[in-house]
Amino acid sequence: MADEPRSKQQRKADVLARLSAPVADAWVATAGEGGPYLVPLTLAWFRDRLLIATARKSPTARNITEVGRARIGFGPTRDVILIEATVEATLPVAEAEAEGAAYAEQNDWDPRTAGEAYVFLVLRPSRIQAWREENELAARDLMRDGIWLV
Amino acid sequence: MADEPRSKQQRKADVLARLSAPVADAWVATAGEGGPYLVPLTLAWFRDRLLIATARKSPTARNITEVGRARIGFGPTRDVILIEATVEATLPVAEAEAEGAAYAEQNDWDPRTAGEAYVFLVLRPSRIQAWREENELAARDLMRDGIWLV
Repeated sequence: MADEPRSKQQRKADVLARLSAPVADAWVATAGEGGPYLVPLTLAWFRDRLLIATARKSPTARNITEVGRARIGFGPTRDVILIEATVEATLPVAEAEAEGAAYAEQNDWDPRTAGEAYVFLVLRPSRIQAWREENELAARDLMRDGIWLV
Repeated sequence: MADEPRSKQQRKADVLARLSAPVADAWVATAGEGGPYLVPLTLAWFRDRLLIATARKSPTARNITEVGRARIGFGPTRDVILIEATVEATLPVAEAEAEGAAYAEQNDWDPRTAGEAYVFLVLRPSRIQAWREENELAARDLMRDGIWLV
């Protein structure tokens, strides 16, 4: 039997805990001329933004720069967080002291050591959804248009 | 310390076991006019094809029909399978006896009962990659252009 559905307040707390946890691995979907793209990446959560560190020439960075948007999923798929985000900035890692320090503190890698080919993509969440089982689907929206609903 | 890298033969066996396991949940990325799309979906593996059951009007079905391709990730992100696939067919669930029986046997739901709004998307893998840690990245390609490399 499924657990009782969580309140939106509880889900928001769970989402923030997951985003801030050590080594926050996620699936990052982008789109570009080559069609859909999807890779697993480690994120950090800093000043209400998602940080991705990746090669400037990676399909993810190219697509995000072109299209301006990404869709990000945290699994397992029966405890889902789904985030739509827009790009706010693309920062060379060596110039991103505050972002680099936050990323390194949350994760097992410091992208500031990765060299000039690497950038931080700073993503602003516009929509956040979270659900576990079917009984949580109806109230899954926690953020819309960049505004927390709870 | 990371485990020894698996052989490609072992990875292929692991991939086929994951694809055939009960309730094979995956992240399905597509692209369309609305940009990138990503949702968690339950798949089945039948006659060397991935089966997705979804509403005909869902963004996933619309995007796949338009663009013809999807990128599918099985997590957790430190035990990854990544599949590029092309659409081979879109079948109304009520007319897909063999696919429906296979899907229902593998999963906890029979899409044939879902009504006329639902379709099976039949996806042919063109590229399959699998890796756990960094030591498996170099040899991650298991299938290219629809052909198993092992």
